Order: sequence, then C-alpha cells, then structure tokens
Amino acid sequence: MSIGVCYFPEHWPRERWETDAAQMADAGIEYVRLAEFSWSIIEPERGVFDFSWLDEAIEVLADHGLKVVLCTPTATPPKWLVDEHPEILQADRDGTSRHFGSRRHYCFNSPQYRTETRRIVSAMASHYADIPAVVGWQTDNEFGCHGTVRCYCEDCSAAFSEWLSERYDDIDDLNERWGTTFWSQRYRSFEAVNPPRPTPAEHHPSHLLDYYRFATDSVVDYNRLHVEILRDHGDWFITHNFMGDFETLDAHKVSDDLDLVSWDSYPTGFVQDRRSGSPSMDELRAGDPDQVGMTHDLCRATNNAPFWVMEQQPGDINWPPRCPQPGEGAMRLWAHHAVGHGADVVSYFRWRRCRQGQEQYHAGLRKQDGSADRGYVDALNAAGELDAVDPNHVDAPVALLHDYENWWAIDIQPHAPDFDYWEHHRSYYRALRSRGVQVDIVHPEASLKGYEAVVAPCLHLVDDDLAARLTDFVEGGGELLMGARSGVKTPANQLHETLAPGPLADLAGVRVEQHESFAKATDLAVKFDGDDYAYSVWGEWLAPEEATVVVAEHTVGPAAGQPAITRAERGGGSVTYCGIWPDEDLLDALVTGLLSRGDIYIGERLPAGVRLNERDGLTWVTNFTGEPRNIDVADGDLLVGGETIEPYGVAVVSGPRSAVTVR
Amino acid sequence: MSIGVCYFPEHWPRERWETDAAQMADAGIEYVRLAEFSWSIIEPERGVFDFSWLDEAIEVLADHGLKVVLCTPTATPPKWLVDEHPEILQADRDGTSRHFGSRRHYCFNSPQYRTETRRIVSAMASHYADIPAVVGWQTDNEFGCHGTVRCYCEDCSAAFSEWLSERYDDIDDLNERWGTTFWSQRYRSFEAVNPPRPTPAEHHPSHLLDYYRFATDSVVDYNRLHVEILRDHGDWFITHNFMGDFETLDAHKVSDDLDLVSWDSYPTGFVQDRRSGSPSMDELRAGDPDQVGMTHDLCRATNNAPFWVMEQQPGDINWPPRCPQPGEGAMRLWAHHAVGHGADVVSYFRWRRCRQGQEQYHAGLRKQDGSADRGYVDALNAAGELDAVDPNHVDAPVALLHDYENWWAIDIQPHAPDFDYWEHHRSYYRALRSRGVQVDIVHPEASLKGYEAVVAPCLHLVDDDLAARLTDFVEGGGELLMGARSGVKTPANQLHETLAPGPLADLAGVRVEQHESFAKATDLAVKFDGDDYAYSVWGEWLAPEEATVVVAEHTVGPAAGQPAITRAERGGGSVTYCGIWPDEDLLDALVTGLLSRGDIYIGERLPAGVRLNERDGLTWVTNFTGEPRNIDVADGDLLVGGETIEPYGVAVVSGPRSAVTVR
Amino acid sequence: MSIGVCYFPEHWPRERWETDAAQMADAGIEYVRLAEFSWSIIEPERGVFDFSWLDEAIEVLADHGLKVVLCTPTATPPKWLVDEHPEILQADRDGTSRHFGSRRHYCFNSPQYRTETRRIVSAMASHYADIPAVVGWQTDNEFGCHGTVRCYCEDCSAAFSEWLSERYDDIDDLNERWGTTFWSQRYRSFEAVNPPRPTPAEHHPSHLLDYYRFATDSVVDYNRLHVEILRDHGDWFITHNFMGDFETLDAHKVSDDLDLVSWDSYPTGFVQDRRSGSPSMDELRAGDPDQVGMTHDLCRATNNAPFWVMEQQPGDINWPPRCPQPGEGAMRLWAHHAVGHGADVVSYFRWRRCRQGQEQYHAGLRKQDGSADRGYVDALNAAGELDAVDPNHVDAPVALLHDYENWWAIDIQPHAPDFDYWEHHRSYYRALRSRGVQVDIVHPEASLKGYEAVVAPCLHLVDDDLAARLTDFVEGGGELLMGARSGVKTPANQLHETLAPGPLADLAGVRVEQHESFAKATDLAVKFDGDDYAYSVWGEWLAPEEATVVVAEHTVGPAAGQPAITRAERGGGSVTYCGIWPDEDLLDALVTGLLSRGDIYIGERLPAGVRLNERDGLTWVTNFTGEPRNIDVADGDLLVGGETIEPYGVAVVSGPRSAVTVR
Ligand SMILES: [Mg+2]
Ligand SMILES: [Mg+2]
Ligand SMILES: [Mg+2]
Ligand SMILES: [Zn+2]
Ligand SMILES: [Zn+2]
Ligand SMILES: [Zn+2]
Repeated sequence: MSIGVCYFPEHWPRERWETDAAQMADAGIEYVRLAEFSWSIIEPERGVFDFSWLDEAIEVLADHGLKVVLCTPTATPPKWLVDEHPEILQADRDGTSRHFGSRRHYCFNSPQYRTETRRIVSAMASHYADIPAVVGWQTDNEFGCHGTVRCYCEDCSAAFSEWLSERYDDIDDLNERWGTTFWSQRYRSFEAVNPPRPTPAEHHPSHLLDYYRFATDSVVDYNRLHVEILRDHGDWFITHNFMGDFETLDAHKVSDDLDLVSWDSYPTGFVQDRRSGSPSMDELRAGDPDQVGMTHDLCRATNNAPFWVMEQQPGDINWPPRCPQPGEGAMRLWAHHAVGHGADVVSYFRWRRCRQGQEQYHAGLRKQDGSADRGYVDALNAAGELDAVDPNHVDAPVALLHDYENWWAIDIQPHAPDFDYWEHHRSYYRALRSRGVQVDIVHPEASLKGYEAVVAPCLHLVDDDLAARLTDFVEGGGELLMGARSGVKTPANQLHETLAPGPLADLAGVRVEQHESFAKATDLAVKFDGDDYAYSVWGEWLAPEEATVVVAEHTVGPAAGQPAITRAERGGGSVTYCGIWPDEDLLDALVTGLLSRGDIYIGERLPAGVRLNERDGLTWVTNFTGEPRNIDVADGDLLVGGETIEPYGVAVVSGPRSAVTVR
Repeated sequence: MSIGVCYFPEHWPRERWETDAAQMADAGIEYVRLAEFSWSIIEPERGVFDFSWLDEAIEVLADHGLKVVLCTPTATPPKWLVDEHPEILQADRDGTSRHFGSRRHYCFNSPQYRTETRRIVSAMASHYADIPAVVGWQTDNEFGCHGTVRCYCEDCSAAFSEWLSERYDDIDDLNERWGTTFWSQRYRSFEAVNPPRPTPAEHHPSHLLDYYRFATDSVVDYNRLHVEILRDHGDWFITHNFMGDFETLDAHKVSDDLDLVSWDSYPTGFVQDRRSGSPSMDELRAGDPDQVGMTHDLCRATNNAPFWVMEQQPGDINWPPRCPQPGEGAMRLWAHHAVGHGADVVSYFRWRRCRQGQEQYHAGLRKQDGSADRGYVDALNAAGELDAVDPNHVDAPVALLHDYENWWAIDIQPHAPDFDYWEHHRSYYRALRSRGVQVDIVHPEASLKGYEAVVAPCLHLVDDDLAARLTDFVEGGGELLMGARSGVKTPANQLHETLAPGPLADLAGVRVEQHESFAKATDLAVKFDGDDYAYSVWGEWLAPEEATVVVAEHTVGPAAGQPAITRAERGGGSVTYCGIWPDEDLLDALVTGLLSRGDIYIGERLPAGVRLNERDGLTWVTNFTGEPRNIDVADGDLLVGGETIEPYGVAVVSGPRSAVTVR
Repeated sequence: MSIGVCYFPEHWPRERWETDAAQMADAGIEYVRLAEFSWSIIEPERGVFDFSWLDEAIEVLADHGLKVVLCTPTATPPKWLVDEHPEILQADRDGTSRHFGSRRHYCFNSPQYRTETRRIVSAMASHYADIPAVVGWQTDNEFGCHGTVRCYCEDCSAAFSEWLSERYDDIDDLNERWGTTFWSQRYRSFEAVNPPRPTPAEHHPSHLLDYYRFATDSVVDYNRLHVEILRDHGDWFITHNFMGDFETLDAHKVSDDLDLVSWDSYPTGFVQDRRSGSPSMDELRAGDPDQVGMTHDLCRATNNAPFWVMEQQPGDINWPPRCPQPGEGAMRLWAHHAVGHGADVVSYFRWRRCRQGQEQYHAGLRKQDGSADRGYVDALNAAGELDAVDPNHVDAPVALLHDYENWWAIDIQPHAPDFDYWEHHRSYYRALRSRGVQVDIVHPEASLKGYEAVVAPCLHLVDDDLAARLTDFVEGGGELLMGARSGVKTPANQLHETLAPGPLADLAGVRVEQHESFAKATDLAVKFDGDDYAYSVWGEWLAPEEATVVVAEHTVGPAAGQPAITRAERGGGSVTYCGIWPDEDLLDALVTGLLSRGDIYIGERLPAGVRLNERDGLTWVTNFTGEPRNIDVADGDLLVGGETIEPYGVAVVSGPRSAVTVR
C-alpha cells in the first residue's frame, strides 16, 4: 500500500523542485499527481504549446524514483479560449452565465469545448506517451464540483432533445411515460422539450428526473472522450477523482469507463457541509468514519477493486465554514482507515500550501515557507506502516443497494424536508458498521451473488426486472431488509398504479396503505419485540398479507395499531419491510436480526467513532475520538499500534475482526 | 347541501369512467368538475379541436345523474402556443421569464394571450352550450397561484401606463398624489412610468401600491373576458375558485363579475405555510377552524350569498412541507364546518390520486389503484348527512372590515417584521369566533346596514368618504372597534398631514402621538379595567380628546402612563380605538364589551379548536381537536351526532347557538 | 458648537417656509442643509433650470440668520435622464440593472453620467456662487448606500481594465502579483480582465481585492469631479456625509479631497442592522456608544480635525427592522456625545416628517402636521447647552489602526463566518473606551507621532514599508498591541511566503505555527497571568523567539500548551502579539497593561453604556442606559447636568477625565 501526493511545481521556482522531490522520496511517497489546471501554462496562446516545464518536473521526480499521474487540464479552460468562444460557458437555470474566474465554467455539451478538449488531451497524451515515469491519468478534476453537473445553456437544450430522442421510441412514448396529460404538458416533438428552466410552480418530476439523467450522461460522454484518446496513446491507467456524498453525478456510470476509481476525502469538511446537525468536536477534529467509509465502500464496490484516495485531507482546509486543527495523528488515521476499507494508494492534497488564489487557507504537507507541517509527519508515519502491509480485496458479506436515480427522485419530491436520502442510507450503513460488518455499496443492477444479506434502504424507482432479481436473491436463500418509500415509482418517476412497494409488494408480502411525514423532532414510536422504539420523519401504515409477520406496530396517533415493520419468508430467505425511519437502537435490532438470519458474525456494538475493518486477513481498528481505547486481541499479532489505541490512533492486527474486542 | 368532486377522466382509461361514475353516484356526489388544464388535449395543435373524450365523459357522468361544472383551461397554455408566442410568458421583477413546465406561465396583459383565450373559451362554450348536464363554469384556476398576479413584462409595462392614464387626470396629478418630489422621482408622462423593477433601495410606496392595484385589475379584466363569452353562450352559473389567506388578488373585485364565489380549502396545509409559528399536532391533523373560517366568511359575505368549496382537502396533500394523515373523520368535519359557515356545495379535490406529474403526493377520495381511500368514506358520510339539511343564509351581527389595499400598503411598509396584516385581523376574528358569533368579512365600502357592531382591525388607507360612512354607522347606533395603524395614509399611500387616525380622528376622539414597533417576544403591557394585559409588536401613545375615555394605559418603558386604548361616545353608538396589538385575553375583553354594547348574545368562551356556527336556525358544533367534547343542548334536536362529539367530530342541532353549551 | 437641520422646503407649501425658518431660529439652529435629491425640480427637463424655489427658500432662511449647506443632487438622476441614457444605470454582479425608482441608480464610471454631473454641478455652483448665506456644500449623498459602491456594468469593465493598466507595469506583472497560475487564470491583456461576475466556485481573492479598490477609487474620482467644480466657483467648504460601520467605501481616500468630514449617525438603527447578536432594550432606546463612537473617532482622526454629524437621528426611524421610541432625552444625549468625540456641528435629519415616498416612517424634529415632535425639544436643549462650550481638538494618546483594504481582504476569505473584521476592531476599541481613553482611528500609513500606544487589531495585508514604520514607532519608545491574523498577506492578497505575521515577525518576535477557527459558542480558553480567560472564533499557535515572553498559553484541545499571546521588547517600546480573539476581561487586561507601559492614565472600568470623553479640558459623561448614574467630580465645574446623570442623560465637567469618577 502506498502514499502519494498532489504537486503543483508551476507554483514554485524551478530551483525548488529538486528539494521537493527529495523530501517526497524521504517521506516514502510513491506517486505524484501533476498538471491539474495547467492549461494556460501548457498552451499560453492558441496552438502554442509549452511542455518544457512539465517535462523537467517529471524528470526531477523520476530521478527520485517517484511515479507520476497526470491530469487532463480541462477543468480550467484559459481566458483566451473563453474570450474566443464564450458559448462554452455554462448557464444557470435562469440563464445567468457561469463566468471565467474560478474553475469548471465549461459546458459538457458544448461541441466547441469538446473540440478543444480533444485538442489539448491529444497534445498531452502524445507528448507523454513514451515517458515511463507517467503511469496513469486522472481525467479532468472532480466532475460536477460547485454544482456544475447540471447546465441549462442552449447547447444543453439541443443535446437534451437528442438524448430524449434516443431514449424514447417517439414523442408519444415520452408523453405516455412522463405523464404529460397532467397540467397540459404534452409535447409534439423532442425539439420542443427544453431544460427545466424557472417556472411559476415546481417543474414536472419526470422531466426533471430525465434531465438529471441526461446531465450525468453528458459527463459520462465527456469523460469517455478523454478516456478514448488516452487509451489510444499509452498503456497507463485512467482514473477520475470523485467527491464524497455527492448527489448529482452517477459515479457508477462514469466508473464503467475507468481502470481505477479514486476519490477526494476531506473528513472534517464533510461533517460540516454535507450532514445535517452540528458536528461534535471529535468530528471537527477527525470526521465521521461512517460518512467517509460509505464513499470508500462505494468506490471499492463500484468496480469491485481496490481504489485510490486521490486527495486526502492534509491538515486544516479552506472550504468548510470553520476549521479546527485536525486531532494529533488524524492524517495518519485517515490513511489507515482508507486502506482498511480497500484503498491501495492514499495521496495527500497538496504538497505545499499555495500562496496564490482561492486555496490559500488549505494546508499542504508542507507550509508555504517550505517547512514540514503536521501532515508531513503523519504522512511519513503512514507511508512506513503501510509499506509493510499488502492485503488483497475486501470481502463484504452484506450489500447495501444505492442508485443515484433514487436519490434524485426523492429530492425532486421529498414530501418531507427532513427526508435526506443519503442520511437515511447512512443510518442503515452505520448500524451495520457499528457491528463491524464490511459492506459493499452497490447498484441494484449489480450481481448479488456471494452476499448473505442485502439492505435496500430506499429502492424508490422499481420495475419488474429489479423485482425479479431481488426475488431470485431471496428465494435463493438471501436475506433482504427493505426500507421505507420503496417500490413507489416507475423508473419514469410516475406512481405505480399498484400500492407501494409496487412491483416489490408480492416479494415483501405487504402493501403500504398510508404514508405520513413529520418534523424531525416529533415524538413517534413503534413497539418491536415487546419494547418501545422511536422513529422519525416518515411513517407508513402497512397491510400485510396473511402469511406475513408483523414485526413492529405503531403506538402513536391515528397510526396506533397499524403495522410498521413486517417480515415474509420466501424460499430460503426472508424479506423484512420497514415502513419507518427507525432510530439507532431499532436499526441495531433490525440489522442484528438480519445478520443472524444470514449467518454473519455479529461483533459487540462498537463505541461511536471506533470502527473495525477486516481486509484479506488483517483487521484495522481506528479511533476517531479524542479518548484512548483498549482492545483485546484473541488471536493474531499487532502489526501496527498496541492494545491501547491513542486518541485519533490506529491498530492493525493480523487476524479476522472476530479476534478483536474493543473495550 | 351537496357534495362534489373534481375529476380528470383524461388521466385514466375510458374503460374506467363507468366505474368511476357509478362510485361517485353511490357516494351521494352531485357535482363533478371537469376539464381544468385540458387545453393540450382539447386542442392538440393550433385549430384542431378534439372534444370527443370530454363529450363521452360528460355523457357517462350524466347517465349517473351527475351534474357537470366545466373549467376554462387557460391556466395551462400548451407548449405549441408558448413556442409560437413566447411573449405571452410572465416575467419576474428582474426580467427572468416564467417558463413552460408547470402552470400559470401566461401574462394577464398579453394581447396575444387574450386573443388565444377568446378562441379557446368560445370554442368550449359554443360546443357545450346545449348540453344540459353542464350546469356551470369555473374560469381558469386559482388566479394568482404561485405568485403570478404580479408580472413585470413589457406588455404589463404598457398596460400599467394605460391604467395610470385612466386613473389620474394627468401626469401632474399622479406626481402630486404619489408624492414624487421625494428622491427626485417626478415623471413627465405616463409612458415613463415602469413596473417596479429592481432598485438599489426600496421602491416608492405609492408606485408599488398602484402597481398592486393594477395587477389585481388585470386579473379582473382577464376574468371578465371569460365571463362575457360564457354568458353569451348559455344559461349556466359562472364561478372562480379563490385561494385561502391569499393577499395579492382582490377577491372582492373579481367576485363582482361572478354568479357564485368558490374557493379551495386545505386546512392542514394552511397551518403550515400561511401562518407564523409552528402548528400543533391537532392543527396538523385537522387545521385551524378560524383560519379556514375567515375565508369561508369572506367568500360568503363578498356576494352576500352561499358559496362553494370548489376544492376540499381529501386526505394527505403534496404542497405543505410535511403531511401527517388527517385525523379520523376530518374530511367529513371540514364539509360540515364549511356548510355551517354558509357553503352550499363542498367539492373534494380530487377523485383519484394521480399517477403523473407534480401532484402525485396529493391524495384523492380513491387511491391510485382505484380503491377507496380514507376520504371516500368521509365524503360518503358527509353527503348523506348534508343531504338532509337545507339551511338558508347565515345571518351575522358583526362585520369585520377588510380591504386588500390595506394589506398591500402594510406589506409595502411594514415597519415591523412581525406585523402580519392578516394575522392581526385573524386575532380579532378569533376573539369573536371564540364567543360563537357569526362574522361577515366585508369591504369597508360595503353597506353596514343590519350590523350591530363593526370591527376594523386596520383601516390603514382612509379618505373622508369612508370616515363619513363610519361616522354615520356609529351615530346611527352602531358599535365600532378600530385597531392600530388606522387612518394613517391616504388612498395613494401618502401620510395624512393630520396625525393618525387622520380622517377618523374626529370620530374616534383621539390622535396618535407616537408609534413604536417591537420584536414579538418583547415584554409589553397595559392596564385595562384594573388588570394587566400583554400586547405585542405595535404600540401607540394616544392623545384623547377631553370627552374621550381612556380604557387602557401603557405600563412599560417610556410609554408608561400613555393611553393605549380609548372610547368615545358618538350619537347612539361608540368608538373604541385600540392602539396596540392586544393578546388573546385582552381581545376577549374588548370584544365582549363590544358585543355587550351591541346587544349581541355572548356565549361562554369556547375551547380552542371547538367552534359553533349558527345558520338559519341550525347550529353546528365542530371539534378540530383530538379530544372528545361534550355538549348540552338546552333546546332543539341533534340532527347529526350526539352529546359527545368525537375527536374531529361534529354535531348539528336544530336550534340557535344559544341553545348549545360546550363543556 | 452648533446645531443644524436637514430641510426639504420643496416638500411643503411656500407659505409654510417662513414659519419653519422662524421655528428653526427659535430652537437655536445655525445650519440648514438643502437641495439633496432636488435634480428633477431644479432641472425638470433637459436644459430647463428652475432655481427660483431654492433661491426663495435660501432667502427666507437667511433672513432668520440661518446658514445654508447645499447638496449636489446627483444621488438621484431624474427619469428623463435615465430614459435618454439607460446606460448610466448600475448593474448587479449577475447583470441585472439597478433601475430608476429609488436612489443611487447611477454608475460612478459612466462617462455619460460624469458629463451630466458636470452640467448640473456647474449650473448650481455658478448660480449660488455669490450668495453669502451658502457657506458650504455636501457632495451627493451617502456614496455607496444600498450596496452601490460596486457596480458590474460594461462601463465599469472598461474602467477596471484601464485602472489595472495604471496600477501594474504590464500584464505579466499583474499575473505575478495576483498569482494567476492558480486554476489556470492567466491573462494576456488588461482588456481581458473583467469585473468579478458570477462563477461556479468563489472568485480569485486578488482579483476581488483589486476590484474593491477600483470601486472605491471610482467613487473618489467621481467625488473629486464635484469638488473641483465647486472649488472653481466659490470660497465655501466642501464635505460629504459618510455612513457608520460602512465597509465598501474607503472614507480615508475620499476625505483627502474634502475640507470637512461629516457622517450620518443613527444609533438605534445601527445596533439592529450592523452588529451581530440581539440589541438590548437600552440599546434599542439609545444605541451603543462605542459603535457610534468608533465612527466619530474615525471621522475626526481621518483629517485630524473636528467633524460634523450631518444627519443625526431625530426620533424613530424607518429603515431598521423595528423602532421603539428613543429614550427620553436621547436626541440631546447623541448631540453631546458627538461633541465630546470632536464634532463641531450636529445636524438633525430631518426638519419635518415627510408625507411622501420611502421615508414616511422617519421622524423629523417636527411631526407631519407641523407640531413639535420629541426631537425638537431635545434639539433645542442641546443647542442651548452646546452654544456655551467651544472646545478645540480632541487629543488622543492611543491610535487604533484600521485600513479598509484589510476589511475587504478578511471578508473575501473569512475562513470563519464569525470573524467580523469591524466587530473584532470594536472589541479592542471598547476595551480602551471602557477605561475612558480617547482613541484615534487612523490608517496604518498615518503618522504615529505623538501617540503613546498603538493598537492594531488586524493588520492583515502588510508590506515591508509598513513593517519598517511600526518598527520605528516601537523602537522609538512606542507600545504596540497587535491582534490575530496580522501580517498574513501581501497587499495583493497573496500569502506571504514567510509564516505570519510575515514582515512583522521580526518586530513581534514570533511566528504563527497554526491557526484554527471555531463557532462563536465553542468553549476555548487561555491562561494569562495565572488566571483562565475565554476566547472565541480564532486561535493561533505561536512560536516565540527565544527573547520573546509568552504572556498567555492555550489550555484546551490540541492547542493546549501552545503560546497564544507573546510580548517582545524592542528598543524603548514593546510589541504584544495576540493570536486569539480575547473576551472582554482579557482585553481589559491586555489594554490596561498597554496603557500602563505607555504611561497613559487608566481610569476605573466604566459601566456598560456609560462613557467619558475628554476634549480640550472638558469632560463629557454620557449615560446610554435607562438607569440613573452618579458621578464624583474631584476637580472642575459641572457645566451641564448634575452629579446624578438621568437615564439617557449627560454631564459636562470643566476638567480632565481623571477628575471624574462614575459610581
Ligand atoms: Mg441465507
Ligand atoms: Mg347599538
Ligand atoms: Mg513609551
Ligand atoms: Zn450547457
Ligand atoms: Zn406581464
Ligand atoms: Zn458601472
């Protein structure tokens, strides 16, 4: 397992590069990412290319045994290009241009920008085709960052019409599947269908969902354009760096074209800007292991292969509202945690704090004066420890099903401001992880072979094919736990004519009679196995078939006495349908029941902030809290750390997770 | 009294229509509303009309004895029309178009759209002129919904100049009455006056007020265009469905052209999205009877005739933030409550939950699979019970004066973010209603003959004519209670030169020396009749004439010792001027004093959520709470319900309200 | 010392003017400001001037011995001018025009508007050149009010490119100093650099800072255009009325062209709309003396001369959210407080409450009916009392350094939502003022000669020149207290390559190792002199040089044990570096230490809301609270007031502040 770093030699004098390379090598760094955002230096005016600086930088690094990952610099079209072709700019919903001055200002569907992209990517790929130090490529950077997946410009309008014409038999087919009889919204041609611009009332949900699909497909196409050129030129790997908890881009689809999935992990930022509620001080110092872990598991499971953290938080960062210093050792902890989840390389962003521009408040491994920052010491430690371990795949017994299209559909019609799709999924994930179980986050269309249990917190858009596949899984002996709002809609975002869970109703042996939504703080409860448990935000009243067992019943309000959770036996397995958003304790009860039926090892419930990861015979214990923790190791050696795990510390045990107990 | 339903046969297969009609008839439904939003089906391309589906639907319904109300489908111009004439789209203040994709995207002042409207309305009216089942028409749908009364497009700009030229003698007259010397805002022609588009500081208040008047007048004109065509073609009634607590459209003015006033009542939505504060769980289950009641009383009193609820909430709905299931029986309760307030027909929206488009989370009387939902049972019960009663007019002893122009003027210059005009009115209304009194909500220019007492919570814009009419009322023996911020401005939204209440000062025998505004939570108090009472938000220091009695005095801060409420005897009546926003208990004291002086029966103070309505010798007792209530009936029979009124239940007594005591 | 008033004769009948003038004279008023916003009356159509009304008004006033200050009426270009030349309108960042309908709708960089300005200013100046009653001019009104300093129109775009070309040697120089290698933002010409319009991510901080400089310079130029014309025509003084706590306009730069600095003081508005947190009831009644005092001291120190309050709050006002009546006597209190701080004239805004337009809720000294309002009595009292005193300059021993460019830089990259630049400065100022010390608020480039101590709460942008000047000051015996986030950036808003405080590090003997930011409520603490003190929002970990003393140390979290405040002796003085935002008690400790080392008299710590001001041998004691306060006067006479100071009252003592003790 290796450590990498993101480096911008163009920000510093050439005289410094040798020192930088030597310090990287000293720290045990193996990979260096280069050339992101470098377009205006590589091509300072149209057609005039200058690779000399980059050639030299690569040479200096290679001389120190460092391997290079290059980036296509397309996230930042230069000003001269924008001035020549202002039509490449994105447009907001209301038509306002997204101007030059930051990054990601280009439209994925601009024919002109695709031409320019071909030009610059071809130029770079052919220039570096025969340089052995260049081992891989990152396409662009963080597709969709700053709300740029969805553009509303004229090029997008034309491309959307074209996309629709390929997806639907004819315009009548679209009218039928969208349901445009509602509010007189029938179209007479694909050309007449526009991007969902500002309207007096909310826009049509089927139209919106297809626009969101189209937008993600536009990125897929645009990424593929890079990939095809790069593949033509060399035998290097190709990756893209995704973001965490990111809704608008379907990472599954983009990943199909990649050799390697990577992502950018900023634990103390994520707890501030993509979770509800206030983070604890521990979380401000080290992040939430399950929040980060979910994207690790999504990235690993997407291509069923080890992944990279392309950008790992190196210290304090610029973009969350606030930034306490990370806990002592947190930068090392994050690297271990990533590897435990299946990462092969953890690459810190960035080498040295930048003096210019928008990211001056973003730490590097080294300070702006070149001296070592806190992250450098942590990275050096992590590099040494990880160099000694070389585990293979993570083997997860449980699949958690997630489809971006469901996320979009819920957000188009949330019907409950507190029903956060991802947070709802995280609550199920957290219950599994607090029992130490490895989880694959997979698309519902992925193969379920090899999983003992499947958790599907919200399969909202469902068709008969998916229902058949899940039925096969359960009848073949699998255990299925389905959450609320499942099977409500067709893939076109229309209500199924049958009551929810629609095509899944026969499998689940239950139908949803009513649904209700509530403010988060509302007192709501069910009785489960003789005990009272709380739930929040969403409640359904269930009508089970005769053979279906009522597992929990509502106890409050007009819902009192109505079934809330049911279970039906089907062939060798069973299906639990949970029509509420359960609290932590009820989720633990549901999940341990599921694991037990699936014959999966159930550990003690782990303390908050402490997590186990088993990977290929090794077990990582990570402590995301400011308190020390003790572990007992029944079997196996302590490869890293001791029986007391320091605050923000880690231990690695050569043995399965069942050998480790956290006290 | 009857039950109706809103039906969209075009959303379902023709084969189903017969079943639907039979089930409607079984439920006791009498009226069915059709063809809303149907333009793109009736005229799928320009000039090609297809009425066959609608003809057939009407025939099926008529065969089951159902009567039909048709809608002009103008709320949703089809895409082909918008593409031909994009200039019909509305524009936001900053010029952003309100695009196709939802509804209400057309401008009321577009000459082109008026032409199109004439075309489609004429085509429908002539086609259905001789179909006896068609008994009435609804014009368009919910004029102004989604913030569409006020448009800022170029057509509106021209129409506004024209409107001004008709309202003012000449541009000097406008300059004088608006007061454009302020900030150098003088105009040299009507053409130079534009809609109030974005400006660095807030816009001129007289300009704004006239624009709001112009906007409502544009709707009045546009509605009249429908009415005239429909009247030309048949002998059917014409109505429009207004909304509740709706500020920007003057329902009084639109109603002048209607045969029948109707409105759309969604009690559990209203408590969430058009009241300050958090609704209680009871209110989330059944709504606030006084909030709904105010619009009932406005609609009834506007044309002094029974009204319809054209859309009655049928169960859970889609547009409030959250939607708990209504309490058991609430859909029946709302129908009775409406009839008690003077409704003759209560029509549920909609027949069946729609699978398509924006309203999938809106229940119908039947579920999307066609089975009966909770509302169907309630509607069936209500139909049976209401069929047996046939009361005439509601006779209200008290008028509450309300003029939309005052609402707009207060909102243009609130000077206190918590001074909500409508909430301020509702607090006076609630005090009257919690004593069981019937209230007419009438325009200040309406005749006051027959009322014993008049409550005017905020006659903000006042001229000498209005002052004279109120003086006549009081001197003729009437009792008048005036609230804070009365008589402050001229109808042009200029300060009167004399101190408030300006032209009403002689009548009230008092002048306002100072005013103050406060945050809602500020501790403020007055002494009234020896007791301390709280008030909030607004306080005035009053200077009474010698003969005027000080009824309450401030006790806090620099206001301490200043008069806050006064009363002056005038001829046979008296005028109470209340310069504060009193709390509930003080309002009860003020209102019972008023009723007492007006010789109006004062019942016991009713519990929150329980209300009495007397209509033509019958008394309704409605329980909007989750607790049962007992009543004593001194005199009269229980036509509906028993002496214990269930949660969300109702009783109807054949006798006056004085015969009923709620325990 | 004098009282003035702002008067709009054009809002009232000519018959009234004589009465108004007589009442002004009776009240002891000396100055009357006229003609603000009068353009459309002076020039009702292009080229047709009508000065007759203004001539007459001036004559009436002069007959009563009143002196006149005229305004150039350019804040409100008339509609006919806007219709002829719509290109003079400002544009928002997203391109939306700022339309006619309020005020300040013109762009400072519009060549056309500069031509129009020359026309109208020349016309007025030449017309009034020989009228002796006209003693001075105010240019325009409140430059920048309503967010208008920064415009994004095409004229501004061209002017910005021009401005840049004058500021930088060539485009490479700009690229280098801004740091445009970051995110590929290199420019090839000045013409290619645009205003910072909407971008996907935040805009480049160096670009933003220069745009803010450019915007303020545009106002400076525009003001100078007025000044030059006015100087050409007469021997009158020229001023401009600034606003309080106003960020976007550099008042230091504009003041360079003025004879006299004036500003507009609205104490009860400021506590509501330009401070965080909720104001107390005392503050709602009288304001915060330190908030107002800071702008007094800024205006006085800027040109090192007495200033005017051109607009003094006269009673309740229209623009804050709420407006309780000012405390009894507050309008008199504010006049005394201003004079204590160095004002020579306090001019109330406005004479009479206006019946028209946007400011109807703004009191005058007289009510809209012409009768005396509360402010008239207060103004009359103040006029009498102030007429009797004639102090010279305020002599301040302490300078507090403030540079608008630092404010802008912090707001461009706050990195802590609670780090409010001005509030941070105010906390240091408040600590000084609660010890009764006079403070000059001066630009870092101002001469420091004569000051015993300098407080620099946040010298964020620092170059070597500034470091040298501060070093001279300290080595010459001065005491310096520097706050957090000092010396972080170059004047181009790039990080210094050396650690903060960058060029100030040698002087301070310390380097900043790490910084952290926190939510305001976070528990944070340091140990200082054996005691625990709280701090908030911002924390730095300091690395002192060997000879530097650690004055305070962190005690919480990973910072525990790290130095937080240090002091270094340098020549005859010393430098305290404070890397946190200390709470009130710690600030008092730091400030008293500083004063002690600087041999400045330290009084008892004053109660909140009570302040002392010493001016030329007189001492003002002002009570901004609703409780009476007693004073002991050791030496000197009570010129105004007695030993008990009433709520919102004042005392003036002929003696130094050391002679007065507040009990
Ligand atoms: Mg199994
Ligand atoms: Mg009477
Ligand atoms: Mg000294
Ligand atoms: Zn686009
Ligand atoms: Zn319009
Ligand atoms: Zn401009």
